[in-house]
Amino acid sequence: MLNNIPVTLDQVFNPRSVAIVGVSANKPRSFAASVVKALKAAGFPAVYPVNPNHTEMFGLPCYSSISAIPGSVNHVIVNIPAEKTLDLLDDCARKGVTSVHLFTAGFRESGEREGIELEQVILQRAQAAGFRIIGPNCTGLYVPRARFIPISRIPGSPGPVAFLSQSGGHAYDLPFHAGPRGITFSKVISYGNALDINECELLEYFADDDESEIVAIYIEGVREGLRFRRALEKAAGEKPVVICKGGTSDAGLRATLSHTASLTSSVKVFDALCRQANAIRVDDIQEMIDVLVAIRFAVPYPKGRGVAVVGQGGGPSVQASDQMERMGLYFPPLAPDVHRKLEEFLPTAGAIFSNPLDATNILLPDIMYQTMKVIGGSPDIHMMLYHMGFHPATHWGRGWYGNDAFLKPATEALQKAHRETRKPVLLALGLPSDLAGAEERLQVQESFMKAGLPVFHSLEKAALAMARVETWHRRFKPQDQDINS
Amino acid sequence: MLNNIPVTLDQVFNPRSVAIVGVSANKPRSFAASVVKALKAAGFPAVYPVNPNHTEMFGLPCYSSISAIPGSVNHVIVNIPAEKTLDLLDDCARKGVTSVHLFTAGFRESGEREGIELEQVILQRAQAAGFRIIGPNCTGLYVPRARFIPISRIPGSPGPVAFLSQSGGHAYDLPFHAGPRGITFSKVISYGNALDINECELLEYFADDDESEIVAIYIEGVREGLRFRRALEKAAGEKPVVICKGGTSDAGLRATLSHTASLTSSVKVFDALCRQANAIRVDDIQEMIDVLVAIRFAVPYPKGRGVAVVGQGGGPSVQASDQMERMGLYFPPLAPDVHRKLEEFLPTAGAIFSNPLDATNILLPDIMYQTMKVIGGSPDIHMMLYHMGFHPATHWGRGWYGNDAFLKPATEALQKAHRETRKPVLLALGLPSDLAGAEERLQVQESFMKAGLPVFHSLEKAALAMARVETWHRRFKPQDQDINS
Repeated sequence: MLNNIPVTLDQVFNPRSVAIVGVSANKPRSFAASVVKALKAAGFPAVYPVNPNHTEMFGLPCYSSISAIPGSVNHVIVNIPAEKTLDLLDDCARKGVTSVHLFTAGFRESGEREGIELEQVILQRAQAAGFRIIGPNCTGLYVPRARFIPISRIPGSPGPVAFLSQSGGHAYDLPFHAGPRGITFSKVISYGNALDINECELLEYFADDDESEIVAIYIEGVREGLRFRRALEKAAGEKPVVICKGGTSDAGLRATLSHTASLTSSVKVFDALCRQANAIRVDDIQEMIDVLVAIRFAVPYPKGRGVAVVGQGGGPSVQASDQMERMGLYFPPLAPDVHRKLEEFLPTAGAIFSNPLDATNILLPDIMYQTMKVIGGSPDIHMMLYHMGFHPATHWGRGWYGNDAFLKPATEALQKAHRETRKPVLLALGLPSDLAGAEERLQVQESFMKAGLPVFHSLEKAALAMARVETWHRRFKPQDQDINS
Repeated sequence: MLNNIPVTLDQVFNPRSVAIVGVSANKPRSFAASVVKALKAAGFPAVYPVNPNHTEMFGLPCYSSISAIPGSVNHVIVNIPAEKTLDLLDDCARKGVTSVHLFTAGFRESGEREGIELEQVILQRAQAAGFRIIGPNCTGLYVPRARFIPISRIPGSPGPVAFLSQSGGHAYDLPFHAGPRGITFSKVISYGNALDINECELLEYFADDDESEIVAIYIEGVREGLRFRRALEKAAGEKPVVICKGGTSDAGLRATLSHTASLTSSVKVFDALCRQANAIRVDDIQEMIDVLVAIRFAVPYPKGRGVAVVGQGGGPSVQASDQMERMGLYFPPLAPDVHRKLEEFLPTAGAIFSNPLDATNILLPDIMYQTMKVIGGSPDIHMMLYHMGFHPATHWGRGWYGNDAFLKPATEALQKAHRETRKPVLLALGLPSDLAGAEERLQVQESFMKAGLPVFHSLEKAALAMARVETWHRRFKPQDQDINS
């Protein structure tokens, strides 16, 4: 806050230079060292390791203090013991930094009086000097558009999803696991103990942020109930908001107290809050990814919960029906005219000729297209799902799916069926049990994902995500636009 | 049935020679061709492809008919259209075969009168000639001890699990996916339409079969309710029985009718039957694998549902508690003396120092051992779970777990903790999102599996399986032995 102009979250989310304090060349596996290396590798413009015992670190000049850095410093990552933090903050104040991210734990969540009091002194100094605090006890920022990519193997390209996470682990896990399924991010922040920047301010910001079309939230506890409720209602009225609450069980509650010192409110109250705001509640981070995939790619959103399932294998088809009905979808029987049209190109022997549909030649791309097209023409079918396994139960055998001769035309076939029916075409790719299967599965996932098709890890997960998104979309009435038009 | 001595299931499960009818060298990807190749590769003693248009196939002599085969033939696999089956059966009768497996579909499950009537004629001819029928409409036998391994990439070594499956796909899927987790099989059979050999006879047989210590069942419908009930009660009174019923939803029910023409009874009746018999009911094949892993390796079985969870990451720990409590386990808080002992070697800063326990140095094998040992000493902790992710959320980084310097001592540490506490030590290995992670995960899984430790794909799945096994074991009172002594 130079000249009393408050630091905005837009400034926090757009650092151009960063200092990392508490990094050592002797601990190359530490959090701080991996951040220095990842930011450098990502091409972030100015990365300054700070350590009085080194002059060079991981190929970068190293400085003895914040003030010793020649250029300006926007953002500071702090990885030193809690009790040494105050001196460093004075140095940050002198340098005129925008934001300080306290990775370090040992504050309020320790339950010790010293930690609780220290947090308050830190907040006062930051407010007096006019910079913002992220944390303590979190992993901070990830902003691909600013090339602020603090860890390797998460998506380098920006995207439409904002993620605010009380947990540092989840703030990395979500982009890492969601990236291969086509989910990329505008701005990600883990805010830990929420000493200064908290869930309410972040949610208010993301509601208005044009770069963020979808907002994902992992939260353990809320401090300002009324403000949070208003922020959630505003955000969820503008764009899809997906929310996962940690600490819903007795043990989870105890764990959140030690994790981020959150006072979790009753699960029922939280549930009601989400329902009223039309935020999409999920149970865990894996389910959050499924819902993000559905929001992003299962368009135009289904106008109902009728699903047609197509694939190979009688047992898997029976199981598919059981699992997907449990999750809230239903399987309209095939209409007589659909049946008649399918008989023109599908053999009836050895097939389950209903919904789910199981036929041997369903793996031929042209048959895939024709089948989806015919079934998608039924008004009571709102979405189609194609399932594949990566195991020897199909006598087409290993390697069939990953083969270019199959994969390219199959991808195009499903894309075409999607385009022409204007109904979501979903993929469920079974999880493999060996390396060859894993490799093939990733090839198939990448091909479908790049074609804009939603890929799920099981029929059950696909069904649950689609049921949640159907409910959300039915109730979603944005003021000034229809995101599904 | 030569000289009116009936063919026993023991004979059916011990073929020494097999003929495969309806195999063509021009269709190397067909079911029949892959069976010929797999049986040859597995070293099954006598494999006879039958096709009048070839004299040699896949490196084996090929015969024009069953009678043209020089030696004796025990088992015949039939892959020709339903309407051509009768002539073949006459040839089988002349040859004096033991069993005929009808892979072919197009019988009763087609719903056509011809198919239904043809089945009855086939049954009469088989009974008159004295051989048994497997199927129609199924994948038949898999008996590793007899080297009868009809498909590649399923376990080659025999084991304690019998599996009777109405679905052919599941009969291959289960061994394929369960193998890498340490589950091997005594005898597997898929019996499809159950024209002759059915679920009741098989269950009666497996109840008494000494090679089968655990019985797994996938069933869509039961024909002889009372006989099945008695067989289930007998089997589940002797050994653990895990059962999955397909067709529990409306759509699943419709699918079973087309799949194996089963009349599925009400789900409630089936549930009650399983509960009374103390059979372990599971919802799908993936869950069946989890329960088999728990039965096989989570020994001695826990005397209660108190779990201690150890691993790295605050968010994942909170999520662990929520998920595992939902599945029916509970998390006793750490007792003061346990807390005190842990403080001797675990740093308190940055850690969630409760149950679940999250500490940075918990990845060091000696710390793993000491932690498990101390926690396992608590009388209210009945099992311990260690969780690992294969992603960059831990700053220990990729490659740490798969490294021999970690994996060997870590495996030994957990093995030792298991031995000394005499409480199950479970592993939950997170699913990776890229190939390097998949490879590392498989290395870790193999190392733990070979050490006899139960490995699960998620905390939630581990918890659900353990809850089911705890309930089963509490009620299990075998007559003449204690399998958990």
